[in-house]
Amino acid sequence: MKIQKQPGWPNFLFPSPVVLVTCLDEEKGGANIITLAWASNFSLNPPTIGIGVNTGRYSYKLIEKTGEFVVNIPSKEHLHESDFCGVTSGKKINKFSATKFTIEPAKKVKTPLIKECPVNIECKVSKIIDNGSHGIFIGEILLMHIDEEIQTLQGTIDYSKADPILYLNGDYWSIGEEIGKHGLSKGKLRE
Amino acid sequence: MKIQKQPGWPNFLFPSPVVLVTCLDEEKGGANIITLAWASNFSLNPPTIGIGVNTGRYSYKLIEKTGEFVVNIPSKEHLHESDFCGVTSGKKINKFSATKFTIEPAKKVKTPLIKECPVNIECKVSKIIDNGSHGIFIGEILLMHIDEEIQTLQGTIDYSKADPILYLNGDYWSIGEEIGKHGLSKGKLRE
Repeated sequence: MKIQKQPGWPNFLFPSPVVLVTCLDEEKGGANIITLAWASNFSLNPPTIGIGVNTGRYSYKLIEKTGEFVVNIPSKEHLHESDFCGVTSGKKINKFSATKFTIEPAKKVKTPLIKECPVNIECKVSKIIDNGSHGIFIGEILLMHIDEEIQTLQGTIDYSKADPILYLNGDYWSIGEEIGKHGLSKGKLRE
Repeated sequence: MKIQKQPGWPNFLFPSPVVLVTCLDEEKGGANIITLAWASNFSLNPPTIGIGVNTGRYSYKLIEKTGEFVVNIPSKEHLHESDFCGVTSGKKINKFSATKFTIEPAKKVKTPLIKECPVNIECKVSKIIDNGSHGIFIGEILLMHIDEEIQTLQGTIDYSKADPILYLNGDYWSIGEEIGKHGLSKGKLRE
């Protein structure tokens, strides 16, 4: 039996990945970090990521102005810092100094990476979609940085070794275990 | 030490949720199911979900035409059917008949829900964003359907009981365990 509800926090689509998005403050000369749970790839060609950012956040204006952002994937060990960067504002504090995360220069954009994160994705904003409380930035991926230790022999990312953080209605979760490979059905159903 | 890579399958942003999107074929009179891993909430007000759909897929044209879709969240027990609906095309087969999933009428849209999925989210397309290989449909959430068994006493969704499926570079994964609550840092860092 199902119950019908109007959508509203925290009844939404989950699970989602927890990501740390870095952006540049060209006026102040530093970089900020915002924690987001609303982020997803959207296309292969061009390769793009969309992120939903509250228009009132400090980072929103920075990304809008610079036209770039970096998606950094934190590991479980960065849980405390990840929560901190989500509940505080870069208007008042320097989050790189506060968290002791290390600034690592990017290759294609001016916005820095977070060195401690095992995956960093440099993005250039291709579209900004006005969507009420939040704006959606569509970013074309320019370059990926992958920690050697989480690479497979085929050069792909072994995300299980990255130990990413999930978000489920206000709780942080770890990933569990592999339950199957894409294509496992071979296009056929069990009898 | 990090290695730089051009983005390309399967080096993208993960983990992501596996969702089953239903859409209506008004000409044929039936409904289709497409499995997607590129889906995310994006805004609170209005509440919206974005999904990335390959423009060559049968479902793309259906959603474009009807201006609506339903996001159904499958459980681990639907893994085989979820893979099947991702690797086959509704042009040739009726996926509801093939999977034995049950059609459940929606309340706000004409597109049906998948009864067996513990969460169903009715969406009306508010924007279509042309993005190369994939189009992004931004859907405003009209109504959520939540199985009584996965509801909390507060009326929110307990996604851990929904046993959702994650996608990590071509593998299906389960969720792990709760590692903390949003706000755990209380805006302060550990000494």
